[in-house]
Amino acid sequence: MAVNALVFDAYGTLYDTQSVAALTEETFPGRGELITAVWRQKQLEYTWLRSLMGEFRDFWSVTRESLEYTLDAAGVAYTADQVATILNQYLELAPFPEAFEALKALKDAGYRLAILSNGEQRSLDTLVRHTGFDTVLDDVITVDGVQRYKPDPAVYELVRSRLGVALDEALFVSANAFDACSAKANGLQVAWIERVPAAALHKELAGQATTPPSTVFKMLRMQMEKFGGAPDHRLSSLSELREIVG
Amino acid sequence: MAVNALVFDAYGTLYDTQSVAALTEETFPGRGELITAVWRQKQLEYTWLRSLMGEFRDFWSVTRESLEYTLDAAGVAYTADQVATILNQYLELAPFPEAFEALKALKDAGYRLAILSNGEQRSLDTLVRHTGFDTVLDDVITVDGVQRYKPDPAVYELVRSRLGVALDEALFVSANAFDACSAKANGLQVAWIERVPAAALHKELAGQATTPPSTVFKMLRMQMEKFGGAPDHRLSSLSELREIVG
Repeated sequence: MAVNALVFDAYGTLYDTQSVAALTEETFPGRGELITAVWRQKQLEYTWLRSLMGEFRDFWSVTRESLEYTLDAAGVAYTADQVATILNQYLELAPFPEAFEALKALKDAGYRLAILSNGEQRSLDTLVRHTGFDTVLDDVITVDGVQRYKPDPAVYELVRSRLGVALDEALFVSANAFDACSAKANGLQVAWIERVPAAALHKELAGQATTPPSTVFKMLRMQMEKFGGAPDHRLSSLSELREIVG
Repeated sequence: MAVNALVFDAYGTLYDTQSVAALTEETFPGRGELITAVWRQKQLEYTWLRSLMGEFRDFWSVTRESLEYTLDAAGVAYTADQVATILNQYLELAPFPEAFEALKALKDAGYRLAILSNGEQRSLDTLVRHTGFDTVLDDVITVDGVQRYKPDPAVYELVRSRLGVALDEALFVSANAFDACSAKANGLQVAWIERVPAAALHKELAGQATTPPSTVFKMLRMQMEKFGGAPDHRLSSLSELREIVG
């Protein structure tokens, strides 16, 4: 099937949500790894739970709520300023090393490129400009309009309504397995970026007496899911996309 | 507000989902704690994701899918028989020590008692009979009819349609914070059973060089949430219910 547009998940796929770990560790010494892992897990959880409850709140609020939950659970003292400083990292998350060049190669080959993200428009636009990705992206599509989060089908439908392409003519790219499998179930072509191959995870587990939070996080979030559709492609990095689309 | 019925969450509230840990450890030595924690987390995650996707599958299937996900992620070899044996533990989960006596005291005081659970009817009926709880419960309400999972509002509405009581005349009891906060947002009176008080969790964290999976699990699942409504009561065990309702 021809590919008329490539649509990228943002958090975890183009941008490394775990790149906040340095700041959380600096702010809460000895607790950075734990806080970073639990926070991201709860952040996703809150998007799912709020969508299910019909009590949508924007991604910035959900990100703050989940951070505050995590800090309370970890038992660390914190100030509103510390929370604000950590949250602001979401406006300057580190892109994955290969991300910009991979997108540029696709752009130069004539493909339309867009983001489809849970993030709210303003924060995501800021992040995209800050990292220079606005020079390679044609559109930044967010859930602001539909007020629901992935994997609600209404989110994936935005590819059709916003880009004007049939879902099966778009290649959706995500490193979040739940997102990749859901997108496939909704009719998109899908490439899953397998950032932690099963063999690497198993080797990591074998070398540990106690499984640390960062490994538990990889188990929870970075392995192929048992629901939805099977992605068309499993890639080890975004750089492989150029070859896939021909 | 008067209480005309008490409605209990089952898994994690009346029955200890972590009571499968002995069998998972026996089956996968050295991995029981990790598998038990990740499995329960993914089990809930799959209920949320499938509800959001509109791809409902019954709780038994979701429980199997999440167990298989966990075993694959953990990198342990397993057989279909081992999966079946572990899954069957869900038909004979251990009740929390105080659960039966607490329910019996309420029953003897004349209250109507019911379960409201994600579980499918057949498994839950089996568990309830196996543990003798059928002698104190008036009804076992499941999501079989609505084909959605908590915290979808349709699930909490079952209290009205199945028990014939207004939501604010029922006291919903759950140790799952997401469930307690969602029930409150949906208009029920709510008692949250705080099985791991924040202070106990913080003490546990302070004594650890590396946070093990069971502690990460307590952080993720057993602390007060930052959404929905605030429960009317925070109790340390089910035994305190009798005093609350008068």
